[in-house]
Amino acid sequence: MNAIDELTESFSRLPGIGKKSAGRLVNFILKADKTYVNKFATQLSTLQDKIKPCSVCGTWTESDPCPICTDSLRDRSIICVVEQPQDVSTIESAHEFSGLFHVLGGVIAPLEGIGPDQLNIASLLQRIKDGSVKEIIIATNPTVEGDTTALYLQRIIQTAAPDVKVTRLASGLPVGGDLEYADKLTLARSFRGRTEV
Amino acid sequence: MNAIDELTESFSRLPGIGKKSAGRLVNFILKADKTYVNKFATQLSTLQDKIKPCSVCGTWTESDPCPICTDSLRDRSIICVVEQPQDVSTIESAHEFSGLFHVLGGVIAPLEGIGPDQLNIASLLQRIKDGSVKEIIIATNPTVEGDTTALYLQRIIQTAAPDVKVTRLASGLPVGGDLEYADKLTLARSFRGRTEV
Repeated sequence: MNAIDELTESFSRLPGIGKKSAGRLVNFILKADKTYVNKFATQLSTLQDKIKPCSVCGTWTESDPCPICTDSLRDRSIICVVEQPQDVSTIESAHEFSGLFHVLGGVIAPLEGIGPDQLNIASLLQRIKDGSVKEIIIATNPTVEGDTTALYLQRIIQTAAPDVKVTRLASGLPVGGDLEYADKLTLARSFRGRTEV
Repeated sequence: MNAIDELTESFSRLPGIGKKSAGRLVNFILKADKTYVNKFATQLSTLQDKIKPCSVCGTWTESDPCPICTDSLRDRSIICVVEQPQDVSTIESAHEFSGLFHVLGGVIAPLEGIGPDQLNIASLLQRIKDGSVKEIIIATNPTVEGDTTALYLQRIIQTAAPDVKVTRLASGLPVGGDLEYADKLTLARSFRGRTEV
């Protein structure tokens, strides 16, 4: 196995990249600017050392606590609970939410052996103990597992802190979408969650 | 710009990878096995030092001349002329051709300012000078530029070495394809290049 095959193999281990695309990427790297390739390699090898989960909310960060947790301008009375660290940047890019985050690190999935104990739920309850948090927005994905996790969280938060409002992101037709292409479940949800005009 | 954004930026410079896919790859790297990531980074940074064009045929190789050029079992009387180094491995994977290769390094494309002088044509003529080569198979892509280059090569080889047979890869319907989906030009070529059953 020569250097080309080795790098092809490594590229094809990336998600969504097959053997053929990997070969194409290696050919690009062979002809690419040396400075770029070296910077790329350094960024790759140092990423995991530089980026760690925030000790408060669990999102990926270079400084601990993360810039969101330490930002004094953000609304500390609302926490948005997400599945994965990358969900934080997705929500941040919408510029709609200005509260804090909490990353669960997954969802309850009994078939994959993931129960509530494997998720960062204890640290969430810890964060709402002092009474400063008024609302928790559960932003798990609108899937069976995401919904189950939302329900579980709602119950456990209600028990631990009855004054905290627990909400869930609206589920329905995507903006710019077309009724014709909406699946039955999404359509059903958009009826149930209809709002007054 | 933090380490995540920097690596995302580098990933998105790869061909066929947009900002969103790049973000997904970075998240994969964040959670990936450290040994794999380090090996990947080392392979990236050392690739260009390890792999050079073969001084004889021009394909990418770790040793010079390349394993194909030095393989005494290969037929030295046939040279297959291709556009890019990666075309060599594509043809090799078909296990149909056992001669030698010659990489042009591109095709004649006047609109992009690429003339015959920028291609490895002089070295090809040098290789056929001693009379040991009987046939040259031109395997440039069946595009306008590839065809132009093939025609140009055919003329220049005929002048330099009239005894050398110059052939071109057959162009026509792909195996497993469907007449219904064949474009007009491919269909026309498959008629012109028809063979007796």
